[in-house]
Amino acid sequence: MKPINIGICGLGTVGYGSFLVLKNNWQEISRRVGTEVVVSHIGTRRLRPGQDVGNVKISSDVFAVVNDPAVDIVLELMGGIDVAKPLVLQAIANGKHVVTANKSMIAVHGNEIFAAASAKNVMVAYEASVAGGIPIIKAIREGLAGNSIQWLAGIINGTGNFILTEMREKSRAFADVLKEAQALGYAEADPTFDVEGIDAAHKLTILAAIAFGIPLQFEKTYTEGISHITQEDIHYADELGYRIKHLGISRKTSNGIELRVHPTLIDENSLLANVNGVMNAVMVNGDAVGSTLYYGAGAGAAPTASAVVADIIDVARMISSPQSSVPALAFQDGSLSDIRITEMPEIKSAYYLRITALDKVGVLAHITQILGDCAINIEAIIQKEPRGADAASQRVPVIILTREILEATMNTAIAQIEKLDGVAEKVMRIRIFKLE
Amino acid sequence: MKPINIGICGLGTVGYGSFLVLKNNWQEISRRVGTEVVVSHIGTRRLRPGQDVGNVKISSDVFAVVNDPAVDIVLELMGGIDVAKPLVLQAIANGKHVVTANKSMIAVHGNEIFAAASAKNVMVAYEASVAGGIPIIKAIREGLAGNSIQWLAGIINGTGNFILTEMREKSRAFADVLKEAQALGYAEADPTFDVEGIDAAHKLTILAAIAFGIPLQFEKTYTEGISHITQEDIHYADELGYRIKHLGISRKTSNGIELRVHPTLIDENSLLANVNGVMNAVMVNGDAVGSTLYYGAGAGAAPTASAVVADIIDVARMISSPQSSVPALAFQDGSLSDIRITEMPEIKSAYYLRITALDKVGVLAHITQILGDCAINIEAIIQKEPRGADAASQRVPVIILTREILEATMNTAIAQIEKLDGVAEKVMRIRIFKLE
Repeated sequence: MKPINIGICGLGTVGYGSFLVLKNNWQEISRRVGTEVVVSHIGTRRLRPGQDVGNVKISSDVFAVVNDPAVDIVLELMGGIDVAKPLVLQAIANGKHVVTANKSMIAVHGNEIFAAASAKNVMVAYEASVAGGIPIIKAIREGLAGNSIQWLAGIINGTGNFILTEMREKSRAFADVLKEAQALGYAEADPTFDVEGIDAAHKLTILAAIAFGIPLQFEKTYTEGISHITQEDIHYADELGYRIKHLGISRKTSNGIELRVHPTLIDENSLLANVNGVMNAVMVNGDAVGSTLYYGAGAGAAPTASAVVADIIDVARMISSPQSSVPALAFQDGSLSDIRITEMPEIKSAYYLRITALDKVGVLAHITQILGDCAINIEAIIQKEPRGADAASQRVPVIILTREILEATMNTAIAQIEKLDGVAEKVMRIRIFKLE
Repeated sequence: MKPINIGICGLGTVGYGSFLVLKNNWQEISRRVGTEVVVSHIGTRRLRPGQDVGNVKISSDVFAVVNDPAVDIVLELMGGIDVAKPLVLQAIANGKHVVTANKSMIAVHGNEIFAAASAKNVMVAYEASVAGGIPIIKAIREGLAGNSIQWLAGIINGTGNFILTEMREKSRAFADVLKEAQALGYAEADPTFDVEGIDAAHKLTILAAIAFGIPLQFEKTYTEGISHITQEDIHYADELGYRIKHLGISRKTSNGIELRVHPTLIDENSLLANVNGVMNAVMVNGDAVGSTLYYGAGAGAAPTASAVVADIIDVARMISSPQSSVPALAFQDGSLSDIRITEMPEIKSAYYLRITALDKVGVLAHITQILGDCAINIEAIIQKEPRGADAASQRVPVIILTREILEATMNTAIAQIEKLDGVAEKVMRIRIFKLE
C-alpha cells in the first residue's frame, strides 16, 4: 500500500516536535497503522537554527502544502486564527484530513470548521488542543461514551498551576512568580491568556461540547483569573483543608450546562489538589463510571506532539483500512515483536530489606560487609529498638534501603545474610520503583 | 438504518449492569452512534431477584445467543474460560463482533482468539478486562500511539489496594482486613487470585502486550502477592517516605521486557501512592508524552459496564459508518443538544469569603446577620489577629466558609457586607467545588 503523506504547516516547537516524533518512532508507527506514514511537505518561512528535516520539500507559503495533491493529512500547527482558519478550510475544501493543536481556533470557529469537514467527509482531529499529551478528548468522546457525563473539572492551564503551586510551596507573591514563569518560558510576555483564564476557557469550551453533546460556546464561558489571589488566601485555604486551583468546570444541572473558569477551593486530599507545577489533570464524572482522572504534561513540544501523532495514526488507520478496527493488540497482525521477556534475576531494582537480627554485637557489621562485597550500595539504614514480643527475644529489626542493583546479586546477598548466626528469620525484601 | 442488535451472554452483576447502562443512556448512545443500539437476546439460566429485562428474548443456553442470526454484537460477560472461550470462538465463527470483560480468557487465550477474529474480520473488544471503567486500553492503544512506551506501572487490583490502604490507615493486620474485604464482597471466598497477584498479572499481561507490541505472555509474568506484608513494613516504609503498593510493572530495557507483579515501595508524593481504597490507577510513560496517569473505579457493575458500553459504541460506529470517523463533537451531526448554558447567578456553590474588617465591635455580628438574612449557612469561620501592616491599621481578616447557596444570593450578601462601615475592602470570594 502506498505511504500516507503528511504536510506540516508551521514548524515551531510543536511542528518540529511532531516531525521528530514521526521520524524517531517511524517503525512503531508503521507497525500500528499497517502503512508507512511519511512527512512529504513542510510549510514554513525558514528553518530555525538546529532544525533538520532531511530532504523533505519545504515551501515558504503554507497554502502550497494544503494545495499539494500528494498530501493526505495536513497538520495545522501555526496557532492563531487569521491564517490558520482559512488554511484549514482550504485543506478541507481540497478533501484533506486535518490535525490541529489550535485550541482558540477550535473553541471559537470549531462549529463552522466541523460542518465544513462533515460536508466533505474528512476528519478534523484536535486531541492536542486540550491538555497537551493527555488523551482527554479520546477518553471523553470514546472511552466514556457509554456514560451520561455529570461534570468535569480540570487543571488545564499549566502556567496558572505553576504560579499557584509556587505561591503555596514557597510563600511567594503572584507578581513575583509570574515574572519567573515568563523567564522560564512558561508564560508569554503578555500573560493575559494564561492568568486571566482565557486559555483555560478555550479548552473548557471544547471539553464541555464533547462531554454534553452541545455546540462550542466559548462566548458563554464565565472566566475569572488568578491575579487577585493572595498569599493569605492560599494560607487560609490550607488551614481549612483546601487547596486553591484554577479550574475549568462544566456541570449538567436541571438549570442547564455550567461553563466556568475560576480559582476554586478543592479538598486537599483529592488527587486533583495534588497535581502541581505545570502538570495538567482533568477529572470526569459519568453516571456509570463515577469519577475518573487523567493526568500528564499539558504543554511542551514532545507531549503536544504525542497528541498530534496519535491523531495522525487515527486518521491514517481510517485511510488505510476503513473497514477494520484498531488492531486488537495495537499493532497490525504479523508485526508483533518477538522481543524477549526479562527473567527476574536480570532486572535491576533498588530494594527495601527488613532483616531480623538477634541483638548480637557485630551482626550489622556482617550484613554491611556482605552488601559491600556484593557491591550493593546502601541508601538508608534504620536500626530500631526491639518492640513487643521481639523485645523479650532480643530480636532487632534492621531496615536497609539499597541503591539499584541486579536482582541476581541481591539474591546472592540475601542468601548469605540469611546464613548468618545473628539473623533470625528470612529477610523481607520489597522492590522499590522510581516512577519518574 | 436498522438498529444494531446486542446479545448478552451472562446476566450477573456486570451483564445486568451493562443492560441497565444501555437502557438508561439509550438516547445519548443513539446520538453518538447515529443508529439505535438495542439488546435483542439474553443468555442466562434465570433472572435474579430484582432483574427486569422487559420483553427481551431470553435463552437459558448462551449458545442460542451467539447462533442467533439477528445478533450483531455478542457480549461475553460470564467470566471463566471453560464455557466462555468456545462461546467466543463460536461467535467469531458466526461472523459476530465480541465485547468481553474476561481478563483471564484474554490474558491466557487472547492470541488464539484475536487470530480467529482477524481471520473472520470481526472485532473482539476488551476494554472492561483491565481496570474497570478506566479507558486504559484505549489510552495506550490509541491515545499514546505516537509514543514508544518506556514503562507502565499500575494499581490494577482493587481488593489488594483496599487491603494495603486499610493496613496502613488503621494499623490493621493483613488477615483481619482480608476478612472484612470478603464480608464487603470485594474479595472472593478464595482470595488467591486477588491477594497473590494472579488477577493483576492477567491485566498486566494485556497492558504490556498493547504497550510494547508483543504477544500475550501470561505464563512469563513474575507474580508475588501481598499476604506476607506486615504492619511493620508499612510503618518503616512510611518513615522512609514511601508507600507500599501492589503494582503491576512492565518496562522495556536493553534486556527485554519486564513483566512483574509484586509489592513495591513508591515515593509517597507520587499520585500513584495516593490512590487508595478499591480505586485503580495506571501510570504510563512514553518517550514523547512523559508520564501520564489514568485513575478510576477498577471494578463494580456500573464502572465495568461503562467500559463494556464504550466498546459496544466503538463496534457499533464501525458497523454503521465504517468509512467515517468518530463524530468531531462526539455526537452525530444534527444531534447536538440546544440545552442552555447556565448564567453565573444561577449556579449553586459553597464559598470561601475573606472579609477585611476594621477591628470594631459588632462587625462580625453584622456580617453573620446579613448571611443569616440571606439564608446562607456558615460551615466554618476563622477570625485572625491582624498581622504586619494590618496590625497598625487595625484590619482583621475574617474567613468564612459557607454551605451551598445560589450565586445570586451570595452576590446580594456580598454587596451588603461591602457597604458596612466596619468593612474596609472588597470581599474576596472564591468558589468551592466538591469533587465527589
